[in-house]
Amino acid sequence: MKRFINSRHNIVTEALDGFLLSSPNAGLARLDGYPHTKVIVRTDWDKSRVALISGGGSGHEPAHAGFVGEGMLTAAVCGEIFASPGVDAILAAILAVTGEAGALLIVKNYTGDRLNFGLAAERAKALGCKVELVIVADDIAIPGAVQPRGVAGTLFVHKIAGYMAARGMSLKQVSRQARATAASCLSIGLSLDTCTVPGNIRQDYLGSDEAELGLGIHGEPGVSKVAVASANKLMMLACKKLAKATGASRSSYAMIVNNLGAVPPLEMAILVNSFAKTRLAEKVDIIIGPAHLMTSLNMNGFSLSLMPLTRQRKQALLFDVAANSWPGLRVRGKTTIIKLPEVNTERKYKASTDKNTQAIIRAVCRVLLEAENDLNELDTHTGDGDTGTTFANAARCVKKQLKFLPSADGAELTTALSDVLARNMGGSSGVLMAILLAATGEAYRHKADWPLAFRKGVEQVMQYGGARPGDRTMLDALLPGLETLMRGKSIIEAATAARKGARATAKMNKARAGRSSYVHADSLKGITDPGAEAIARIFETIADRSSPNS
Amino acid sequence: MKRFINSRHNIVTEALDGFLLSSPNAGLARLDGYPHTKVIVRTDWDKSRVALISGGGSGHEPAHAGFVGEGMLTAAVCGEIFASPGVDAILAAILAVTGEAGALLIVKNYTGDRLNFGLAAERAKALGCKVELVIVADDIAIPGAVQPRGVAGTLFVHKIAGYMAARGMSLKQVSRQARATAASCLSIGLSLDTCTVPGNIRQDYLGSDEAELGLGIHGEPGVSKVAVASANKLMMLACKKLAKATGASRSSYAMIVNNLGAVPPLEMAILVNSFAKTRLAEKVDIIIGPAHLMTSLNMNGFSLSLMPLTRQRKQALLFDVAANSWPGLRVRGKTTIIKLPEVNTERKYKASTDKNTQAIIRAVCRVLLEAENDLNELDTHTGDGDTGTTFANAARCVKKQLKFLPSADGAELTTALSDVLARNMGGSSGVLMAILLAATGEAYRHKADWPLAFRKGVEQVMQYGGARPGDRTMLDALLPGLETLMRGKSIIEAATAARKGARATAKMNKARAGRSSYVHADSLKGITDPGAEAIARIFETIADRSSPNS
Repeated sequence: MKRFINSRHNIVTEALDGFLLSSPNAGLARLDGYPHTKVIVRTDWDKSRVALISGGGSGHEPAHAGFVGEGMLTAAVCGEIFASPGVDAILAAILAVTGEAGALLIVKNYTGDRLNFGLAAERAKALGCKVELVIVADDIAIPGAVQPRGVAGTLFVHKIAGYMAARGMSLKQVSRQARATAASCLSIGLSLDTCTVPGNIRQDYLGSDEAELGLGIHGEPGVSKVAVASANKLMMLACKKLAKATGASRSSYAMIVNNLGAVPPLEMAILVNSFAKTRLAEKVDIIIGPAHLMTSLNMNGFSLSLMPLTRQRKQALLFDVAANSWPGLRVRGKTTIIKLPEVNTERKYKASTDKNTQAIIRAVCRVLLEAENDLNELDTHTGDGDTGTTFANAARCVKKQLKFLPSADGAELTTALSDVLARNMGGSSGVLMAILLAATGEAYRHKADWPLAFRKGVEQVMQYGGARPGDRTMLDALLPGLETLMRGKSIIEAATAARKGARATAKMNKARAGRSSYVHADSLKGITDPGAEAIARIFETIADRSSPNS
Repeated sequence: MKRFINSRHNIVTEALDGFLLSSPNAGLARLDGYPHTKVIVRTDWDKSRVALISGGGSGHEPAHAGFVGEGMLTAAVCGEIFASPGVDAILAAILAVTGEAGALLIVKNYTGDRLNFGLAAERAKALGCKVELVIVADDIAIPGAVQPRGVAGTLFVHKIAGYMAARGMSLKQVSRQARATAASCLSIGLSLDTCTVPGNIRQDYLGSDEAELGLGIHGEPGVSKVAVASANKLMMLACKKLAKATGASRSSYAMIVNNLGAVPPLEMAILVNSFAKTRLAEKVDIIIGPAHLMTSLNMNGFSLSLMPLTRQRKQALLFDVAANSWPGLRVRGKTTIIKLPEVNTERKYKASTDKNTQAIIRAVCRVLLEAENDLNELDTHTGDGDTGTTFANAARCVKKQLKFLPSADGAELTTALSDVLARNMGGSSGVLMAILLAATGEAYRHKADWPLAFRKGVEQVMQYGGARPGDRTMLDALLPGLETLMRGKSIIEAATAARKGARATAKMNKARAGRSSYVHADSLKGITDPGAEAIARIFETIADRSSPNS
């Protein structure tokens, strides 16, 4: 199993150091005493409030260090991966942050954590500290479990107690609310794969068509295997369990959507959408996440946690915190859908007639249709042999649309042609031609000078398409032709320049843009670029029409 | 490949709906026009400022929708997975949010995105909008690349331009700063595995000992394969590439540490710690992340992006935003390490002598040493056969420490014995005994009544250990003995009650706590719980000493 670790023996201390180096909340520190004592504490803490201390085995990041900060925890005591911290480390954390107001320990329901936090609490009491302890046992996976596990519902306890403590309530009040919160939380997990402890061999006890429902956060097998199914179906299975656990309660709930480690953000968002379709969603008025809150190393799964809302709890959830990893929340509301801007429907042009312009366009279309096979043949050497067909398709569409186009208005006509090509030509060349014509039309609108307007259009093609002269593209014919016109020369001379430019592409053995750039130089030798050839033929067609003999 | 999706055909629309349902920033909406038009826009937008529009193919979540909000983007245009959005969708986004101040399009350097955003920009201009476009090409993987890819450095452009726009700067000013930012960003990626497009077969072209350096965000192979190595080594390889690209620049930099999709938070924190050891770290004054910013579906890798800092850029980075997925930042500083509270070192007790107390303790130690084999034998039926040894070890330690203990001070003695057992007895029973004695000592300190103090100790054991009377634990002997004493009866009667309680455990076939809870009921039949047996013998020992015949 490939992992980003160094030695398995200092995973947790290295991760905590990395955490402190990058923590946006700069008011954090660690207690001295590595490797045994791994405690993250607030430095902006004045002991006048009830201290909140949580922790447990590591491997659940960002829990718990990511929740240390004003409005949530005062300290997090971190054990090794999936192993409770020792009594001395917990006691050190208590003594470091507990003042007159006392401390509340928030402990997930695992024997090791209960005992070690419990003994540390007793020792701290013997040293004169006021200490209370709340055990979170929110997992509902095992029906009738005497000791349900503590999982992501713990975050609710952190948040509610954090608010009470920040508001200056007494240890007795904070503890009472924390216990009530813990008693009311319900959580269930579902995963497509188990997690792997760094250094261990990957345990793939699930088949490729199996998922697990009702799992813990330490890689222990889930209560049941379920068939892999759609996100909607899997979410429904998890929600049914929760709905059953809520029973006939008519409460409204807050829900945590927790990423158990390795689910991509895209899929977590799909799961939220699936959740919204369940019946349980009707009872959920606040969503927290999706986010990494209480992970299980690299587990490819999620968990849901519910807490019944009261006015006070809602207020507590909304309270802003300085902890890095509290993701904020969303109060249920309708998604706003904004009407599309009008113009997105087919653009309307006022058809007009200009015999000469229409004749030129028809001639250009004819030559492109005739060139289809030649251009395709050239393209087989450098691309997938469809340049001719792409241009021919464009020509067919333009011919068909011609009578609906504003032929008598140069700027409007060019813009309209851009639209026709964008919709019908296809491929990158379709978009490039559309950009050329759109930008040309826009330029002509400001100044009625065709060569200049086309030159502006070509500039946009270069910007968006990324090609430069000499890159073996249609630009190598287009630019010489246009520049000849801009120097006041005739269209016949321009056509000669475009043809010369097209011919030169046969000697360019390094394509730097477009499809030819992926082709080996030898394959390009002696082959004219099909786009440049098309442009040369267009110039020649227009030149023919304007020559005295035409 | 197991994924949380429904149909591959509506992954993006479902994910965007899930995103909107759970977005902590409630000021977001989408444009009508699914499935073609997938655009997230701000609803709290008044068009008086320069609009910032970004987007591209999906599969990079939270980019770009997660960065829409005051201080960052105005709209995000989302294509299908790894495919550019269409021109019409982009144009719709531009028209929906662009006012007098104009719009800046921030585009990652991929041909499809450049062309489609480019054509949309030209069309919008033709419709009278002021539009500028900046292309981000921050990838440094391919030396001398003509068209470097746009990757996570794009976030810097969002943030810097977002600040400028929020401050009311003109389109010209915002565009200039955005282009300068884009031109200055440098990024490199490293991954242990490639990503898999949902619905496709997993392409495992990397060996189990191979990683990739210099990869893009669309699953295209990296520039080089490197051997899997420690996090430190892999981070060093990535940083060397970046350091080379920065050249002789003496700038200080901001750096983004980007999770490419599936790296657990624990490992991302280790990578930050590895980064801090590189030479490049000396030049980095601001760290953003580790966080999911510009992912590549489920890729198990990370990327680093650098931007040279100026006074203005630093100010821009620090500016608060309403976008969901901007993770904040950390300005470089020393990690604070706080001295451990004094008490964590070995606790000092003032030795004192009380002949009678010491004699009782010695007697109890003797009986526990004698009971070692009997208790081990009982434990083989229900546990791993070491209860006797655990108690005997405790007895040996206590005997050795006895002369250093405060025997004449009941409360201090009990607390001291708790410490001795916590340090030396081991296992859950060691912690449970330590809790019992610590809580007993604390209670005795308040009221010098042994039975009552022990009863308080037992309550804490029940709370932390989770066992109740009848659960087949030492409590089943301890509680009857103590309760007999509390009713004013003699120690002899208490010993009888404890023995009776111990015997009763042989008939309890359902253990609900402790190790026996994992054992089948039949295996427990007729076997006394070894912990209860130990307690009964302790009571009998004390009773013997106090009986007239002793």
